[in-house]
Amino acid sequence: MLYLIGLGLAYPSDITVRGLEKVKQSKKVYLEHYTSILMNASLEELCEFYGKDEVILADREMVEGGCEEMIEASLTEDVSFLVVGDVFGATTHTDLILRCKQRNVPFEVIHNASVMNAAGACGLQLYNFGQTISMVFFTETWKPDSWYNKVLENRKIGLHTLVLLDIKVKEQSIENMARGRLIYEPPRYMSIQQCCEQLLEIEEIRGEKAYTKDTPCVAISRLGSDKQAFKSGTIEQLASYDSGEPLHTLVILGRQTHDLELDYILEFADDKENLTEMLRKDQEYFKPLPWVPPSEDEMSD
Amino acid sequence: MLYLIGLGLAYPSDITVRGLEKVKQSKKVYLEHYTSILMNASLEELCEFYGKDEVILADREMVEGGCEEMIEASLTEDVSFLVVGDVFGATTHTDLILRCKQRNVPFEVIHNASVMNAAGACGLQLYNFGQTISMVFFTETWKPDSWYNKVLENRKIGLHTLVLLDIKVKEQSIENMARGRLIYEPPRYMSIQQCCEQLLEIEEIRGEKAYTKDTPCVAISRLGSDKQAFKSGTIEQLASYDSGEPLHTLVILGRQTHDLELDYILEFADDKENLTEMLRKDQEYFKPLPWVPPSEDEMSD
Repeated sequence: MLYLIGLGLAYPSDITVRGLEKVKQSKKVYLEHYTSILMNASLEELCEFYGKDEVILADREMVEGGCEEMIEASLTEDVSFLVVGDVFGATTHTDLILRCKQRNVPFEVIHNASVMNAAGACGLQLYNFGQTISMVFFTETWKPDSWYNKVLENRKIGLHTLVLLDIKVKEQSIENMARGRLIYEPPRYMSIQQCCEQLLEIEEIRGEKAYTKDTPCVAISRLGSDKQAFKSGTIEQLASYDSGEPLHTLVILGRQTHDLELDYILEFADDKENLTEMLRKDQEYFKPLPWVPPSEDEMSD
Repeated sequence: MLYLIGLGLAYPSDITVRGLEKVKQSKKVYLEHYTSILMNASLEELCEFYGKDEVILADREMVEGGCEEMIEASLTEDVSFLVVGDVFGATTHTDLILRCKQRNVPFEVIHNASVMNAAGACGLQLYNFGQTISMVFFTETWKPDSWYNKVLENRKIGLHTLVLLDIKVKEQSIENMARGRLIYEPPRYMSIQQCCEQLLEIEEIRGEKAYTKDTPCVAISRLGSDKQAFKSGTIEQLASYDSGEPLHTLVILGRQTHDLELDYILEFADDKENLTEMLRKDQEYFKPLPWVPPSEDEMSD
């Protein structure tokens, strides 16, 4: 049996009681280790918490390569595949389940919180979110902006946009990759500042006003940990905000911001009056035109 | 301290290890008991699992009335407020946290899976979902359809729509309410069938083709429990599908359905060929027009 188990957001003890039972009874335990990290736990702490000698790190090569060995083992014994957050955050895990089905490997999913639902902690209502986007690290020559249209689409219908910030774990430099050297760069986690700078950079290029420098956002840092922090401000303001240690997530507000949501996010603003004004101003974008009765001229036609 | 703790979806053991610690150390434990239910547990089983003599049921009156007593108690002792799924599913809990802040009541949120992220188990990618809608029980005279525009907006930009199905727990009949009799109706949970019938009924009235009877959907039943079931089909097909015991959720597909998503949901279809055809047909709706080069006439202008 293959147990696919969500670990939640921060602590070893964020695993569910049922999840922990399954880990303990598993012969082999894998930890998916490239789409996210568990903020408040080292690998040693996890091993100790699970009462295991070993937790095998599953990197991108292993997971995208099909996890053959893991699937094979699951045919004859209990195996756990641990994912930070929930199991269905990343496409590749859906693919893994499909392969289990094809191979008749029995599997069970044990869910947990992920940023996709826990982001509600910033006070914005989950049912007002549109499609989610990912912001990758730009380079001098590579600045992908396919997310721009998605923000525009969300904001046209008044919805908030969750922005997932890039992380680079166990990545090779282009030089090392070219030379086949298995040397990995130190892990990198995008900051709120960099994300907002990239947002401004692309708006400058595209100029379609999917958002402006004054569009209100909420920065979510270290969600679910003891160092969790929120900061509300405009994109421009957050482009000079020091968000501290990772992980971070950003929400770009949509027009449909209710008063209760506003009350909540104002608590996280440096200047409440300014943010309220920016929000009112931003709500004018994409606003449906008010209905006006036809003029007398038109009536007489 | 007030601990707001998500319980996850089905089993008493779906609570996190950290959540369970906090419940055990709490003097008073409340269970929010009107926006959802824990499928695989009775109140007695919960008490036993937590090692508590009592778990106080918090009904709509109590929560929307402000939970004065609970907040007051949290000033001097540890209190747990348990919510099926995650804490930020329902607006009223954000409101509760705002009141804690105003009263300087220390609080901590312990997240868990909710339908908002665990719905990914049906194989559709969470980042392709638009705004979430709620479907309430229609009556002869009351058929609210404000959700219709939201489905239309989502589908115009190709996104999936998560439909939360109404539940009625501890509701009074109009007659009993009028006479001030504290007699409550048996609990009711909307079935997939009824939800789809109501979808068809409103499309019949509105006629704006937000969706058609042939629009593909995925029915999610008893998510996260041992009786979890998925069924893919068109709205018309699912309007005669017996979805069994509650709870249920529906996803209306959007045009942006990827091949991996399709592979996954076809596993849950009675007739794969038919559903593939319906999906291809449905993808023609709201499709951006293909770019055509200007005609020679236009060129010569």
